[in-house]
Amino acid sequence: MALKCSLRLVAALRELVFVGLGLHDEKGISLKGLEEAKTADAIFMENYTSLMPAFSLEKFEGLVGKRVVVVSRRQLEDESGRIVLEAASRGKAVLLVPGDPLIATTHVALRLEAEKRGIKTRVVHGASIVSAVAGLCGLHNYKFGKSVTIPFQENFSETPYMVLAQNKSLGLHTLCLLDIDVEKNRFLTVREALEILLKIEAEKRLGVVSGETLAVGVARAGSSNPTIKADFVKELLNYDFGGPPYSLVFPGKLHFMEAEALITFAKAPTAVRRLLE
Amino acid sequence: MALKCSLRLVAALRELVFVGLGLHDEKGISLKGLEEAKTADAIFMENYTSLMPAFSLEKFEGLVGKRVVVVSRRQLEDESGRIVLEAASRGKAVLLVPGDPLIATTHVALRLEAEKRGIKTRVVHGASIVSAVAGLCGLHNYKFGKSVTIPFQENFSETPYMVLAQNKSLGLHTLCLLDIDVEKNRFLTVREALEILLKIEAEKRLGVVSGETLAVGVARAGSSNPTIKADFVKELLNYDFGGPPYSLVFPGKLHFMEAEALITFAKAPTAVRRLLE
Repeated sequence: MALKCSLRLVAALRELVFVGLGLHDEKGISLKGLEEAKTADAIFMENYTSLMPAFSLEKFEGLVGKRVVVVSRRQLEDESGRIVLEAASRGKAVLLVPGDPLIATTHVALRLEAEKRGIKTRVVHGASIVSAVAGLCGLHNYKFGKSVTIPFQENFSETPYMVLAQNKSLGLHTLCLLDIDVEKNRFLTVREALEILLKIEAEKRLGVVSGETLAVGVARAGSSNPTIKADFVKELLNYDFGGPPYSLVFPGKLHFMEAEALITFAKAPTAVRRLLE
Repeated sequence: MALKCSLRLVAALRELVFVGLGLHDEKGISLKGLEEAKTADAIFMENYTSLMPAFSLEKFEGLVGKRVVVVSRRQLEDESGRIVLEAASRGKAVLLVPGDPLIATTHVALRLEAEKRGIKTRVVHGASIVSAVAGLCGLHNYKFGKSVTIPFQENFSETPYMVLAQNKSLGLHTLCLLDIDVEKNRFLTVREALEILLKIEAEKRLGVVSGETLAVGVARAGSSNPTIKADFVKELLNYDFGGPPYSLVFPGKLHFMEAEALITFAKAPTAVRRLLE
């Protein structure tokens, strides 16, 4: 009887909880996410799929009252998250992930592997750049089409341009996440992203992006001082967005209220009123 | 000098902060969201744009240590949020919003009006159903096209069907939010939503939805026991999803890992492996 009880106890503890850290700093986590961390036997954190510019590991450990082990891309991907899975085989493990967890494919792979090993998994959601950007710009969320990441020049891809072309033809907004390399402290800037798109335009000539195209640059979403600037591409190329991370939105057809929101929240030139659908 | 200082102090306090409550219950709010509420002169909450089924106002007021005034759709829309704007004209007002704020158009209108009156506005983000659903199903976020709300039968619209048709033709996933009327405690169910789409299909005959179409129903995202079930429409029609709120995803072309995720996280039949892109 005693043996049966203790076995059941051990079984109940084998779990892996993915907890979203939300945006910007250590206070982006939800109250339930913090509770999950406080009751974990082991806490891991990955900090390479998104940048949280003001996150302090020391302050976060103070909030939780426990040590947090930072795991690298090598540990989560090349080594298939072995360190995390081993801890979850022994008790309750929490993996902290910037934004909303499971947006990145790498975490879906880890969750699949955990379930395959009989480890129960759960998700505690966090604020994501995906919904934050629409709200910050005042653009209607349901009018966004497919989103895309613009990679660094050395990983050049035409995909972002083609996604933008498709969304534009449908009158939809496009969210472009700009590439990051947290380990090398490198972040694709709004200017670099625009230059990549203009270069593809010069070859493809589909009329998707030019100096006269309206776009919105967003920096440090989730902080108390995000920079949100809507303007024509030729102007945005020289706009100072301050520190990373960055995203870029290409509006499709604008509703009257969206144009007003861009003028008020994103300092768009009043000429955007001419672009109404 | 003393007068100048006190005037400056008053000016600094005129602000309206939109704070996302995240999902499901009172612990979905972020630590920074809770801090904003604690330092507010007046706290309002709207609870009609989304349902948070386990939210306890009493527990939340206990966490904040202050009274929260619940505002109705009538107060925020018909009366243009007068009660909130008046409080923000006198000091720091916080408006609590389920999910991530400013996803609903009504809050964008309120934010525009506040800025027009010289009231500073800020946003503290929260977890949103928009990113949560992708993560819960294990579908790639960047493969979602335009999203749509399926309204109650009496507000019948062909739009959801047309959005679905467009996304399908592009191989993209579609997130359908199902209509709610919190004041009347009414929630469009997965079955009702599917029946509405099948009825439009019977008229339009574009081959968008049939009993053999794969879909994923999600109930109570953000709770510790969400129901996530992927199956063919004819089976989902009779599946018991438990309590609200509900959403529905129609997958487009599936990547290998997405199919495995649907089988593991959403109990999809293994036949989905035949649907790989």
